[in-house]
Amino acid sequence: MHCEIICVGTEILLGDIIDTNSQYISKRLNEIGLNLLYHTTTGDNPKRLKAAFEEAYERSDIVIATGGLGPTQDDLTKETAAEIMGLEMEVNDEWMKNLETIFKDRMTPNNLKQADIPKGAKMLYNKNGTAPGVLIENNEKTKAIILLPGPPREMIPMFDEYILPYLMEKSGKTFYSRYYKITNYGESALEHMLLDLVDKQSNPTIATYAKEDGILLRVTANAEKKEDADVLLQKYEDIIYQRVGDGIFATEDVSLSRVILNLLEERNLTLAVAESCTGGNLAAAITENPGSSKVFYGSMVTYSNEAKMRVLGVQKETLEQFGAVSEETVREMAAGIAKLSDADVAVAITGISGPEGGSEEKPVGLTYIAVAYKGQISCRKILYSTRRRSHQLRTANYALNMVRQIVLQDDEK
Amino acid sequence: MHCEIICVGTEILLGDIIDTNSQYISKRLNEIGLNLLYHTTTGDNPKRLKAAFEEAYERSDIVIATGGLGPTQDDLTKETAAEIMGLEMEVNDEWMKNLETIFKDRMTPNNLKQADIPKGAKMLYNKNGTAPGVLIENNEKTKAIILLPGPPREMIPMFDEYILPYLMEKSGKTFYSRYYKITNYGESALEHMLLDLVDKQSNPTIATYAKEDGILLRVTANAEKKEDADVLLQKYEDIIYQRVGDGIFATEDVSLSRVILNLLEERNLTLAVAESCTGGNLAAAITENPGSSKVFYGSMVTYSNEAKMRVLGVQKETLEQFGAVSEETVREMAAGIAKLSDADVAVAITGISGPEGGSEEKPVGLTYIAVAYKGQISCRKILYSTRRRSHQLRTANYALNMVRQIVLQDDEK
Repeated sequence: MHCEIICVGTEILLGDIIDTNSQYISKRLNEIGLNLLYHTTTGDNPKRLKAAFEEAYERSDIVIATGGLGPTQDDLTKETAAEIMGLEMEVNDEWMKNLETIFKDRMTPNNLKQADIPKGAKMLYNKNGTAPGVLIENNEKTKAIILLPGPPREMIPMFDEYILPYLMEKSGKTFYSRYYKITNYGESALEHMLLDLVDKQSNPTIATYAKEDGILLRVTANAEKKEDADVLLQKYEDIIYQRVGDGIFATEDVSLSRVILNLLEERNLTLAVAESCTGGNLAAAITENPGSSKVFYGSMVTYSNEAKMRVLGVQKETLEQFGAVSEETVREMAAGIAKLSDADVAVAITGISGPEGGSEEKPVGLTYIAVAYKGQISCRKILYSTRRRSHQLRTANYALNMVRQIVLQDDEK
Repeated sequence: MHCEIICVGTEILLGDIIDTNSQYISKRLNEIGLNLLYHTTTGDNPKRLKAAFEEAYERSDIVIATGGLGPTQDDLTKETAAEIMGLEMEVNDEWMKNLETIFKDRMTPNNLKQADIPKGAKMLYNKNGTAPGVLIENNEKTKAIILLPGPPREMIPMFDEYILPYLMEKSGKTFYSRYYKITNYGESALEHMLLDLVDKQSNPTIATYAKEDGILLRVTANAEKKEDADVLLQKYEDIIYQRVGDGIFATEDVSLSRVILNLLEERNLTLAVAESCTGGNLAAAITENPGSSKVFYGSMVTYSNEAKMRVLGVQKETLEQFGAVSEETVREMAAGIAKLSDADVAVAITGISGPEGGSEEKPVGLTYIAVAYKGQISCRKILYSTRRRSHQLRTANYALNMVRQIVLQDDEK
């Protein structure tokens, strides 16, 4: 069954307001497995409105329109839908009574217009406004046009109460999803690694969403029973963990820094950081979370060599002999911040975010990350050659994930 | 001239994300007097995508499409537009070089696809992503298809830089604009202060754009000659400076942190920071700029009281008597970071970003900022009651603007 949405409103074409109704309806349709082909937004122009309805009704089975049900002359959605379906307009007595209660003696002729609905259509009660919704089915009940008011506080309750149950019965399918939040892989790299699964895209289907701290992967199976869906989903889950499991830090849509803070808080561990190339972005990712002060000591953003020496006690000789971007330096930074803070977990980062400052030997993107935990310093060298800002963010995420891995590995000891 | 927008993205039809691009573009088109007929959203289905483009290109003069330019097999917007216009795809050498710089040896075949553009089309440079935009005109230059990437942080700068001037020229009217980059005021506060100018909206018109570090205000006059426009613009400029001049830090679209770095670099001054509630966001704003190491010593993100004492030498008695969020503490933090770093300008910030941690006496949003410069410490108390993240960003911006004001005031001595 194919659906589409028509949003009627000149104010949306002018950019005065944003159309949130289409997203709301789309999400609900997706959840019940209905296929949405198009959103179309058009203004209150009669000719274009009619063309949009004609086209939508021809190519889709269910057309859901929002907006244009108000009392003014511009509001033409009901009349247009009636024309397409070949129906006359008639007064709906129930709604007329309701309007009389609402307006009492202040009823104007254009308010009266709101009691008109296409003959034979179902009136949908609007608890929060004066425009009722309308459900019009064709004689064979194979196609329908649904009209809902534009204001979300009117539209949403009506959609949930009348339209969702109507459509669920029509669709007859049930969907089950699992989510994976993944870091250390870019969106295209991830798709590349799961290409065979993505290419199939029948049942289950895979969707990827780029987020600031990684990728959210959604796997959705369609089955009559949950047990059957679980079999399908588990098969994909095993493959996904086998290929990119090192980057999976959650099985829901949650931020990496929140996961790390929870992990540390559960174990009563504190965290301190020394940053160079990430320039405060790791601290910013951590402190974005309310309550991070329970875990977070602070970050020494030692951007200059001077600061690395004075604040963290990095040796001048180390900087001169190996350079600021080296394993030797990052280890001294980690030891320095661990000592300065007495934190249980200490992280240090040094690298070249670019665009300047690279060399043949040490290219832009070269980065060292060290994590000091329980008297041991683990160090990794990474090389993301990307733009400055995304290098900073990816490196900060990499460091957070490294903390996660090291703490979890130690748990297993 | 009739325009329409096609938004390409299955994730929008699924309701996973909301299409904010169409509103942005609609608003801009409206401001320059262009008539927008439709928004259409369609997914990555080749047949439906093609149908949407065919229809739009037939009924409108300018078709602006966003999304579907990425590296994956689903991304078909360029190919579809090329087919409609009867053009072959060819490799764009400039973009290929750019991709090689970005990806180095990690280039995958699907990334290569991003260098293809329709033959004869104009490639639009994307500073914030790996997919370029495309402008395709018909031979008579009476119609055009414009393709822009879906992520707003890529789309918006490209629209503003390439498409807006192109469309302004097409619209046949002559527009002259002046820009003001403003901090310390929220978008609605700013609109409120300029309400009489905004309400008129005939000539000149005023548009506000929310940016991470403030508001970009554009005043646009429509006149035959530049001199006439200048008279109109100057009248507005005088009013704007009179009302919100304290927040204007640039007359072009440039970041606040870039302005501060230039200001300090020109005067051979170095900068060091001590942050608490901003949690690294001030450091991150500064280090976002390539070459910031010339000026920036570093930031001590002393999130815990322990760190404030150990790293900055804040007295235990001060914290106990006045609290971490107090003028006394911020002054000691500023003195501490100045002493630790020997930087010419030292900034310290402490405050309550929320949502927890506020009290009747010290509400969420209360913040103290101190700037040490030439032996003097200036301190300001501010109170932005807003969400955590935006409190962090606004406070960081406030501190940067305070540095600007103090250095410039000193210049005048």
